[in-house]
Amino acid sequence: MAQANPILEAFNQTPYPVTGSGKFSVRLLLEAFEGIDGDTDSDIYGNGKLIEDFQAKMAAFLGKERAVFFPSGTMAQQIALRIWSDELGKKKVAYHPLCHLEIHEKDGLKELHHLEPVLLADKDRLITLSDVGNMKEDVACLLLELPQREIGGQLPAFEELEAVAELCRKRGIKLHLDGARLFEVLPYYGKTAAEVCALFDSVYVSFYKGIGGIAGAILAGGEAFTETSKIWKRRHGGDLISLYPYIVSSDYYFERRKGEMAKYYAAAMELAELYNRCTGLKTKPEVPVLNMFHVHADVSKETLVPLFLDLYKETGIGLTRNINAINETSCYFEVSLGERYEAIPKPLLQDAFRLLNEKLNHIK
Amino acid sequence: MAQANPILEAFNQTPYPVTGSGKFSVRLLLEAFEGIDGDTDSDIYGNGKLIEDFQAKMAAFLGKERAVFFPSGTMAQQIALRIWSDELGKKKVAYHPLCHLEIHEKDGLKELHHLEPVLLADKDRLITLSDVGNMKEDVACLLLELPQREIGGQLPAFEELEAVAELCRKRGIKLHLDGARLFEVLPYYGKTAAEVCALFDSVYVSFYKGIGGIAGAILAGGEAFTETSKIWKRRHGGDLISLYPYIVSSDYYFERRKGEMAKYYAAAMELAELYNRCTGLKTKPEVPVLNMFHVHADVSKETLVPLFLDLYKETGIGLTRNINAINETSCYFEVSLGERYEAIPKPLLQDAFRLLNEKLNHIK
Repeated sequence: MAQANPILEAFNQTPYPVTGSGKFSVRLLLEAFEGIDGDTDSDIYGNGKLIEDFQAKMAAFLGKERAVFFPSGTMAQQIALRIWSDELGKKKVAYHPLCHLEIHEKDGLKELHHLEPVLLADKDRLITLSDVGNMKEDVACLLLELPQREIGGQLPAFEELEAVAELCRKRGIKLHLDGARLFEVLPYYGKTAAEVCALFDSVYVSFYKGIGGIAGAILAGGEAFTETSKIWKRRHGGDLISLYPYIVSSDYYFERRKGEMAKYYAAAMELAELYNRCTGLKTKPEVPVLNMFHVHADVSKETLVPLFLDLYKETGIGLTRNINAINETSCYFEVSLGERYEAIPKPLLQDAFRLLNEKLNHIK
Repeated sequence: MAQANPILEAFNQTPYPVTGSGKFSVRLLLEAFEGIDGDTDSDIYGNGKLIEDFQAKMAAFLGKERAVFFPSGTMAQQIALRIWSDELGKKKVAYHPLCHLEIHEKDGLKELHHLEPVLLADKDRLITLSDVGNMKEDVACLLLELPQREIGGQLPAFEELEAVAELCRKRGIKLHLDGARLFEVLPYYGKTAAEVCALFDSVYVSFYKGIGGIAGAILAGGEAFTETSKIWKRRHGGDLISLYPYIVSSDYYFERRKGEMAKYYAAAMELAELYNRCTGLKTKPEVPVLNMFHVHADVSKETLVPLFLDLYKETGIGLTRNINAINETSCYFEVSLGERYEAIPKPLLQDAFRLLNEKLNHIK
């Protein structure tokens, strides 16, 4: 059973939830399938027009030779690293200490693929060019996550990315992009997806972060790489007879939101400023580089939760669905902006932050 | 790209397709979601009422302590065998030479879990009590598939099953059920699912064979077993944020078809008799024990395909979606009956078989 989360329940009750693009409800699917002809053939074990068309479309968008649809990024990324490891005959792969594979996948990469991660950089900062330059281990692949989600969604300068890519090419290290939030970072870089992906040998993107779909992922790269990834998809149990519930919805929400990321990014900058004006709150990064950031509070979770519950009730504004404890005197939460933000009347939002600041001052 | 399959295309054009419950089209999903309230909350990473209710319902139906929903049987079964292997500290598992894990999963069990299969019995017959009794290898688990699909859907007597289960208990071997078609065999055994599953330590069932859903599987067993299976589900990349497209449809088609299996079984017996009256055709088994059987022909696939294409055109009856070559002088195809059979006017069907027999006599 899921543990009760009072702040999530309260958030879902507010007339003005601030984050995300909508509730995780069945409506997501119903909307995506509204215009779909019932006679449309299912994909069958990775074949058929429905899956092949979407894969071709995403390959073109990402500027890669081929793309393969996966039920999850967890599956797609373990497989990407395994393929590069096998190709280079090296068991080591490098990534950030807070990489999804390291902290959210129950060690699938180690338990299923017996790969050995080399953790680059400190937990609280990005991987730099010199981290890669100073790496002593002989790795098959370096995984970079753009943005680095667990530190609030930070990004290296594009020039540094280019330098890292060049260094990897020289050293014979494959470069893989964890692009779970790739669409979201394009406005900051002022680049197309293909321009960013050109620096990488393989790329994963997700359809349920900023895109707001139901689930699903694309893994893209050269033809030999993607063909091998299909074999591993079968081995992992991801080559379902029908993946169309996720493909149709991914395509629908991709079309609906791929052009909206600059708006969500602007919303994040505006909202971060409101947070940073509150006593004891600080966003990370201070100025967001995409539609997400973290808010750190110098009070305990136990203190902040009831304060937020009151605030939601008094203002109708739902700020976050979750608060994470750091220690006895601090906590943080993630903010990710989507379609909902612009529906919130600005005066209401400003009033809510004024009240939030009063409450925070009161507990000091 | 999928290879063109003229017999599949012709089958899909016939007004009277004989096998299955419907086309693999998006309509399957649209129908299942017709009565679903858009406000229904999604499951979230294996939690939430939607997934927990269905898991509890299936655990009760199968007579097991707990059940876990998986995107695929490939994933669920590898995980089941891995858990028993880890628990008993033995790398070997036993199954039939034509087990799904051996021939359809690109060796996932070996490549991901490093388990070593012991192949019991010959390819063309069931595993018997004496096969298990004579097994020299010290295995963690025996997997039995009911029915043994690749030999036409054969079943051991229930008494033999009970004896195998007792032998396994005595020898400390875990017994796992590949119940991809468990619902379909219950009329033959005259048992409830729970009565059959009581012989097994763990059970997998599928929702897109006789049940006719979109995709999805249940793995059931004791609480410690299923809790560990959730960790492996995460590792495999199967712990999706939302599995409800498959859960809602599995539940819908389970309710619609769980009571229809005796009817589909009767249809299979009737249809097998029609096939067995044709020159050069023989069903395996001769008398079906569930809604499926294989048809073996003593002519080549190259000869049979154009004959069937003509037959479909002349009669409007679609007999099979696929024909598999065995060698230069024989071929076979699988027949699986569902909702469609009873819609076919009997005289039309009999005419089609009369014509089929004429055509077969003609080529002899």
